[in-house]
Amino acid sequence: MINPFDDIYFMKRALQEAQLAFDKNEVPIGAVIVMNNQVIARAHNLTETLNDVTAHAEMQAFTAASDFLGGKYLKECTLYVTLEPCQMCAGASYWTQIGKIVYGASEKKRGFLALKTTLHPKTKVLGGILEEESASLLKRFFIEKRNLN
Amino acid sequence: MINPFDDIYFMKRALQEAQLAFDKNEVPIGAVIVMNNQVIARAHNLTETLNDVTAHAEMQAFTAASDFLGGKYLKECTLYVTLEPCQMCAGASYWTQIGKIVYGASEKKRGFLALKTTLHPKTKVLGGILEEESASLLKRFFIEKRNLN
Repeated sequence: MINPFDDIYFMKRALQEAQLAFDKNEVPIGAVIVMNNQVIARAHNLTETLNDVTAHAEMQAFTAASDFLGGKYLKECTLYVTLEPCQMCAGASYWTQIGKIVYGASEKKRGFLALKTTLHPKTKVLGGILEEESASLLKRFFIEKRNLN
Repeated sequence: MINPFDDIYFMKRALQEAQLAFDKNEVPIGAVIVMNNQVIARAHNLTETLNDVTAHAEMQAFTAASDFLGGKYLKECTLYVTLEPCQMCAGASYWTQIGKIVYGASEKKRGFLALKTTLHPKTKVLGGILEEESASLLKRFFIEKRNLN
């Protein structure tokens, strides 16, 4: 059966969010949370706008998804995020008991894999979906930043 | 010189916050953030009230402190929290670059020490301040919960 709602599709939705961050001069990272092929939350990094280091795309998406569902746990949900989550966001995912995390580009230095953050035992992980697109948006952002300074 | 503003004093302030959580039927954990002997943020666990697993006392305190200071970083600040922070909160502390974390009771299973969360290299840590008071409030909460069910 043809399914248009695949990982590529939802990562593109997360990339749209990352582009919104880019347009606001925020480090371009975007996330969506999906349940039964429906996007129930979307968010992008707002750490500069909100002057708050906790305002990562994933954190906002967790809060929004719980609010939408009226329940604290996201067991039946998948998080799509353009960059590998950090310790804080992976640590938050532990508490949400999210079913799956799909990320785009790797974060070799501050990502949860390098820093060995413990996920919930039921959370599956898949990386590298639209990795190049996610990474190139980030790279473009930092090149433009450098040229402005 | 006599200094009334010591770790015990500020941990008592955090315990007051934990008591507020207890009174709302929330797992009783409280936190304050201090700069130059002044409490610039205080918060208690609100995960049930807000239906949001990210609403730990520390997370709210970080957001409130940044808002108060008008800057994202908390380099000159100390976090007092009644229970050893989890991965999420310790991961958030990394991004705040907070100067010091002082906690009360240990969390042997889900605390950041057991799970080896990476703190910012400049963050100092001190545990065990009013450990017994913090732990006994938590114990009392869970005993009462059990008796109600």
